[in-house]
Amino acid sequence: MGIDYGLLAAGGAAIALLYSVVLIFYIRGQDPGTPKMVEIATAVRQGANAFLSREYTIIAPVAIVIAVLIYLFIDRPIDSGGAVAVGFLVGSTLSALAGYVGMAITVRTSSRTAQAAKNGLGPALSHAFRGGGVMGMAIVGFGLLGLSLYYIAYQGAISSDPATLAGLGFGASLIAMFMRVSGGIYTKAADVGADIVGKTEANIPEDDPRNPAVIADNVGDNVGDCAGMGADVYESFVVTAVAAIILGALIDLALKANLGYLPGDVASAIGSNQLLVYPLLLGFAGIIGSIIGGLYIRRSIRAEPMKALNVALIIAAVVAIIFDYIFGRLLFGVSNFSYSLLGSAVVGVVVVVAIEQVADYFTAYTHAPVKGIAEASQTSAATNFLAGFSTGLQSTAPSAIVLIAAILSSYYLGYYASGSNNLMGIYSTAIATMSMLSLTGIIMSIDSFGPITDNANGIAEMAGLEGKVRDVTDELDAVGNVTKATTKAFAIMSAALAAVSIFEAFQSEVNKQIVTHNLFSKYSLSPGGTLSFTLTDPHVIVGLFIGSLLPFYFSSFLIQAVQRAAFKMVNEVRRQFREIPGIMEGTAKPDYAKCVDISTQAALRELVKPALLAVITPLVVGFLLGPVALGGLLIGSVISGVFLAFTLTNGGAAFDNAKKYIELGNYGGKGSVVHAAAVMGDTVGDPFKDTAGPAINSLIKVLNTISIVFVSAIVLLALFV
Amino acid sequence: MGIDYGLLAAGGAAIALLYSVVLIFYIRGQDPGTPKMVEIATAVRQGANAFLSREYTIIAPVAIVIAVLIYLFIDRPIDSGGAVAVGFLVGSTLSALAGYVGMAITVRTSSRTAQAAKNGLGPALSHAFRGGGVMGMAIVGFGLLGLSLYYIAYQGAISSDPATLAGLGFGASLIAMFMRVSGGIYTKAADVGADIVGKTEANIPEDDPRNPAVIADNVGDNVGDCAGMGADVYESFVVTAVAAIILGALIDLALKANLGYLPGDVASAIGSNQLLVYPLLLGFAGIIGSIIGGLYIRRSIRAEPMKALNVALIIAAVVAIIFDYIFGRLLFGVSNFSYSLLGSAVVGVVVVVAIEQVADYFTAYTHAPVKGIAEASQTSAATNFLAGFSTGLQSTAPSAIVLIAAILSSYYLGYYASGSNNLMGIYSTAIATMSMLSLTGIIMSIDSFGPITDNANGIAEMAGLEGKVRDVTDELDAVGNVTKATTKAFAIMSAALAAVSIFEAFQSEVNKQIVTHNLFSKYSLSPGGTLSFTLTDPHVIVGLFIGSLLPFYFSSFLIQAVQRAAFKMVNEVRRQFREIPGIMEGTAKPDYAKCVDISTQAALRELVKPALLAVITPLVVGFLLGPVALGGLLIGSVISGVFLAFTLTNGGAAFDNAKKYIELGNYGGKGSVVHAAAVMGDTVGDPFKDTAGPAINSLIKVLNTISIVFVSAIVLLALFV
Repeated sequence: MGIDYGLLAAGGAAIALLYSVVLIFYIRGQDPGTPKMVEIATAVRQGANAFLSREYTIIAPVAIVIAVLIYLFIDRPIDSGGAVAVGFLVGSTLSALAGYVGMAITVRTSSRTAQAAKNGLGPALSHAFRGGGVMGMAIVGFGLLGLSLYYIAYQGAISSDPATLAGLGFGASLIAMFMRVSGGIYTKAADVGADIVGKTEANIPEDDPRNPAVIADNVGDNVGDCAGMGADVYESFVVTAVAAIILGALIDLALKANLGYLPGDVASAIGSNQLLVYPLLLGFAGIIGSIIGGLYIRRSIRAEPMKALNVALIIAAVVAIIFDYIFGRLLFGVSNFSYSLLGSAVVGVVVVVAIEQVADYFTAYTHAPVKGIAEASQTSAATNFLAGFSTGLQSTAPSAIVLIAAILSSYYLGYYASGSNNLMGIYSTAIATMSMLSLTGIIMSIDSFGPITDNANGIAEMAGLEGKVRDVTDELDAVGNVTKATTKAFAIMSAALAAVSIFEAFQSEVNKQIVTHNLFSKYSLSPGGTLSFTLTDPHVIVGLFIGSLLPFYFSSFLIQAVQRAAFKMVNEVRRQFREIPGIMEGTAKPDYAKCVDISTQAALRELVKPALLAVITPLVVGFLLGPVALGGLLIGSVISGVFLAFTLTNGGAAFDNAKKYIELGNYGGKGSVVHAAAVMGDTVGDPFKDTAGPAINSLIKVLNTISIVFVSAIVLLALFV
Repeated sequence: MGIDYGLLAAGGAAIALLYSVVLIFYIRGQDPGTPKMVEIATAVRQGANAFLSREYTIIAPVAIVIAVLIYLFIDRPIDSGGAVAVGFLVGSTLSALAGYVGMAITVRTSSRTAQAAKNGLGPALSHAFRGGGVMGMAIVGFGLLGLSLYYIAYQGAISSDPATLAGLGFGASLIAMFMRVSGGIYTKAADVGADIVGKTEANIPEDDPRNPAVIADNVGDNVGDCAGMGADVYESFVVTAVAAIILGALIDLALKANLGYLPGDVASAIGSNQLLVYPLLLGFAGIIGSIIGGLYIRRSIRAEPMKALNVALIIAAVVAIIFDYIFGRLLFGVSNFSYSLLGSAVVGVVVVVAIEQVADYFTAYTHAPVKGIAEASQTSAATNFLAGFSTGLQSTAPSAIVLIAAILSSYYLGYYASGSNNLMGIYSTAIATMSMLSLTGIIMSIDSFGPITDNANGIAEMAGLEGKVRDVTDELDAVGNVTKATTKAFAIMSAALAAVSIFEAFQSEVNKQIVTHNLFSKYSLSPGGTLSFTLTDPHVIVGLFIGSLLPFYFSSFLIQAVQRAAFKMVNEVRRQFREIPGIMEGTAKPDYAKCVDISTQAALRELVKPALLAVITPLVVGFLLGPVALGGLLIGSVISGVFLAFTLTNGGAAFDNAKKYIELGNYGGKGSVVHAAAVMGDTVGDPFKDTAGPAINSLIKVLNTISIVFVSAIVLLALFV
C-alpha cells in the first residue's frame, strides 16, 4: 500500500490545529476594545484561569493515582508496556487541554466581539464565528492527534488486545466529567443566583455591573459553557473513535483466528488493520468538511443566522461524505462492503441534521412548544414550569426515533454486506457514530458562538456600552440556545450510539478473559462456552436497574448542588444590596469576590459525590456481582440516561427561549408578571440544560470506559457471579 | 388432599368482602351532618358519579371491542373456549367496579367524618379509617374473588396454556390505566387551577366556597385519589397474582414434560397445581393480617398517627407471615423448599416496611429533605422547584436498593432450594411480590384515610363549619401525603418486581409458539433451539430504548394535559372573579358547573393519546420488529419507568409537605412570600404525584399484559424479526 494511514490521520489533525492557530492570530489581531472593556475581560479571564488552575490542582493528583493503579493492576499483569496507563494520561491531559483552550479563546474573542458589535451585526458575527471555529478545530485536532499518535505508538498492543485503547477513552471521559460537573455547578450557581435577585427582585438587567454576582456569572460562562463543553465534546469524539477502533480490532482478531469468519470478498477488502484506521480517516474527512462549511457561514450568517447555520452544516456533511468515499475506496477498494460502510457514514451525518431539526423544533421560539411555554407563563410560574418540563419530556420521542432508525439502518447495512455477521453490523453502527462525530468541528463552531456572544453581551453591559450592542446580539443569543441544545443532543446521541459498540467490546473482553484464565467453571459455563447477557438472568436485570438509576441519582446531586449554591448566592447578593449603601446608585462597588468564592467552593466541593458515584459504582457492581451485572449496568445507564438527558437539555433550552420570546414584547414583555414567571422557569431550566443534562453524557462514557479498563481484574476477582 | 384450594381462596375473598360490607353498614349508620353538609356532599357525589358514568360510557365500548378482537384472534385459534376474552372482561369489569366502590364509599364517609370532627380528633379518625378499610378490603376482595373464580372455571386451560391468564391481567390494567389517567387529569386540572387563583392571587383558603373551582376540586379528589387509585391498586394485586400463577403453571408444565427437571424432593413437595394456588392463599393470608392490623389502628391512632400506622403495618405483616407459613405447610409439607418460599414471603413484607420508611424520609416534614425544600422556598419558587425535583431524584437510590435486594434475595432463596433452577428462582421472586401485595388491604386502609380527611376538610370548609374541624384534620392531611406516597411506591415497586416474572412468562410463551408453529427457520434458530434476549442483539437494544422512552413520553402527555386544563381553569376562575360581582363578598354564587366542565372535557379528551400510546406501541413493535424487540421494550419500560415514577411521586409529595411545613408557621407561614413560592412548588408537584407518577405503574402493566395476550399472533406474524 505504501501509505501509513495512522500518519495520514495525524496529518488531518495537524491541518485542524494549524487552521485553529491561523484563526487565533486573526482574532488576537483585532481591537480588544476600550480600556474599560479590556479591564473587565481581563478580570473575567483571570477568574476563569484561577478556577481552572484550582480545579486542575485537584484533578491532577487523582488522575496520577488512577494512572498508577492502572499501571500496577492492569498494565503489569498483561505486560503491555504501560499502554493503558499512558493512554489514560494522554486522554486525560488532552481533555483538560481541550477545555482550557476552549475557555482561553472564547474569553479573548468576547471582548473583541463586543467591540466589533459597535459597527453592527456583521463584524460581530464574523469574530464570534472565528472564535467558535478555533474551539471546534482545536478540539477535533487534539482528539484526532492523540488518537493517531497513540495508534501509531501502540499498534501492536491494540491489535493483540483491543481493550488497551480503552485507557485513552477513560482518561478523556473522566476529566470531561469532572469539568462538566464542576463547570456546570459553578456557572449555574452564579447565573441562578444573579438572575433571581437581579432580574426579579431588584429589576436590573442581566450583566448589570451593580449585581455582585455578575463577575462570577461571566466567569461561569467560560468555565462551564466553554471549558466544560470543550472537554465534553473532545471526549465524545475520542470515545466514539475508541469504540469503533476496538471493534475493528476485534474483527481482525476473529478473522485471524478463523479465516472463514467472513465471506472471502469481504475478508480481502478488509485486509489488515484497515478497519482500525477507517474511523480515524473519517475524522480527517470531517475536518475538511468542517473547514469548508465554516467558510460558508462566515459569508452568509448576517441575513438569517439559523438558515445559514443549517446550510453550512449540510455543506460540511456533503464534503465529509465525499472524503469518506475517497478514504473508503483507498482502504477497501470498490466493493459492496465499501459502499455499505459509506452508507453508514451517510446515516451518521443524517443523524446530525435530524437532531438539529429536533432541537430546533423544541427549543426555538419560532415553533409551537416554546410559544406554548410562554403562553403558560400567563397563569403563574407553576404552569410555566409544567409546560417546560413536559416539552422536555416530549422531545424524547423524536430523538428516540432518530436514534433507533440510526441503529437499525447502520447495523443492517454492515450485517448484510458481510454475510450476516453480527460484529460487522455493530462495527457499521460504530462507523455511523464516528461519521456523526467527525462533524464536531463545524458543530462546535456553530455552538461556541453562543457563549461568545453571551460573554460579549456581558462585557458590553458591564463596560457601559450603549444599548445598540445588546440589540445586535440578543437575537443571536436565542439562536445560541438552539445550537447549544443541538450540541448537547449530539453528545448524548453519540453516547447512546457508542454504547452499543462499547458493550460489544466489553462482552468480547469478558469472554476473552474467561478463556485466558480458564474460568469456565467459575461462570458455570461448559468448557469453551461463552457468557451471554440475557434478559432472563436476574444479574442482568439487577444491573439494568442499577445502571438506569445512575443518571437519576447523579442528576440529583448536580441539581441540588446548584440549588444550594444559588441559595447562598441569593442571600449574599441580597445582603450586599442591603448592607453596602450606594450599590444601586452605582456609587459603591459590590464585593464581586465573595460571589466568585461561593461558586468556586460549591463547584469544587459538590463535585466529589457525583464523581465518586460514577467511578465507584461500576467497580463495586463488577467486583461484587460480576461482569454480567456490570454489562446490565452499562446498558441500563444509557437506556434511561439518554432520555433523562434529552428531557433536561431540551426542556432547559425551551425555558430560556420562552423567556426570550416574552422579552420580545409578547404577553406584556420585560418587567411584566408573565415575564417574572418565565424567569422562574428559565432559572429552573439553567441547571437542567447546563449542569445535569450534559453531564449525563460524560457519566455514561465514564461508566463504559472504566468498565472496559478494569474488565480483566473484574472477571478474575468477581465474588458472586 | 381433599381441600379445594381455589375455593379456599374464594372463601378468603368472601371474608374480605363481608368485612367491608359490615364497615359500610357501620358508616352509613353515622350522622351525615347538617343539611348544608349533606347538600354539598351530595353535589360532590353526583359530580363524581356523573364523571364516572361518562367515563365508563366511553371505556365500555372500547373494552367490548378489545374483548371481541381477543376472542376472534386469540381465543378461537387456540380453541380456549373464550378463556382469554372472558378473563379480559372479568378483569376490566372488576377494575371499574373497584374504582367505583372506592369512590362511592369515600364520598359517603367524608361528610360523616367532617360531622364527627366536631367532637374532636378521635371520632373523626375512627370514621376515616373505617372508610379506608372498606376500600382496602373491597379491592383485595374483588381481586381475590375474580382470580379464584376464574382459576376454578379455567383451571384446565391455565394449566395447559398458562398465558391464558394474561387476559385477566390485561383487562384489569387497561381499565386501571384509563381511570388513573383520566382521574389524574381531572383532579389536578381542578386542584392546580383552584390553588393558583385561590391561594396565591385571591388569598382565600383552600376549599373556600367562593372559589368557582371548589366543587370540581372536590369531585376530582374522588375520581382521582379514590376511583383512580382503587382501580390502580386492584390491578397491581391482580397482575402480580397473574404473574406468579403463570410461572407456577410453567414450572408444572416443565415438570410434566421432564420429570428430572427438579430434584425429587422438590418435585414431590410441589405436587400438582400447588404452585398455582399458593399465590392465591398468600392473598388470603394478607386479608387476615390486614383485618387484624386494621383493628389495631382504630384503637391506637389518636395519639401519634404515623406511629400507629407503622405498628399496624407490622402487626398485619406478622399475622400474614404466620398464615403464609400455615398455608405453605398445607401445600408443600415440611421441606426446605417450603421454608425457602416462606423466606421469599418474608422478603415481600419487609419490602413493604422498607418502602414505607423511604417514602416517610423523603416526604414527611419531620425529615431533612422536606425541610430543605421549605428552606429553599426563601429564595424564590425556582429554588423551591430545584430542591423538590432533586429530592424526587434522590429518592430513587434507596428505592433501587430495596428493589435490588428484594430481587436478589428472593431469587436465590428459590434458586438454591430447587437445585439451581432458574424458573424456581423467578417464581420465588413472584412469591415475594405477591406477599407484598397481599398487604394491599392494610396499605389501602392506611392510604385512603388521606383522601377521606381531605374531602372532609372540603365539606367542612364549604359548609362553613368552625375552624376547629380544620385544625383537627390538618395534621392528618400531612400524614396522608406520606401514606399516599407509600401506596404509590408500593404499586410501582410491584410493577418492577412483577415485570421480572412477567418477562419470564413472555419468553416461555414466545418459545412455545415457535415450537408449536415450527418457526425455527423464521427466527434463525437451529431446530429445537430457543430464542434468547441478549444485550448484544440490536433488536433487544432497540426494544430497550423504545421501552425506556415510553414512561417519559407518556408522562409528557399527562403533565401537558394538566397544565393546559389548569391554564383554562385559571382563566375561567379569574373571569368569574372579574365578571360576577359579589363572589368575594359571598353575596353571589360562582358558576361551579363551568369549572366541572373544564375538568371533565380535559380528562376525557386528553386520555386518548397516552392510552393509544400504551396500547399501540407494543403491538406495532411486536408485529414489526418481532418478539425479541418487544421483550426489550417490556424490560426497558420498567427499567426507566420505575425511577421516573419514584422521582415524580416522592418529589410531588415532598413539595406538598414542604408547603404544609411552612403553613405550620415556619419561614413566615401562610401568606408570606416564602409560602407563595412553596405553593408554586406544590402546584407543580400535583400532576407529578397524582397524575403522571402513579399512571406509569399502570402503563408498565398494560405493556406487559397486552404483550402476553397477543404473543401468539406476534410470534406468528412478525415482519422483520
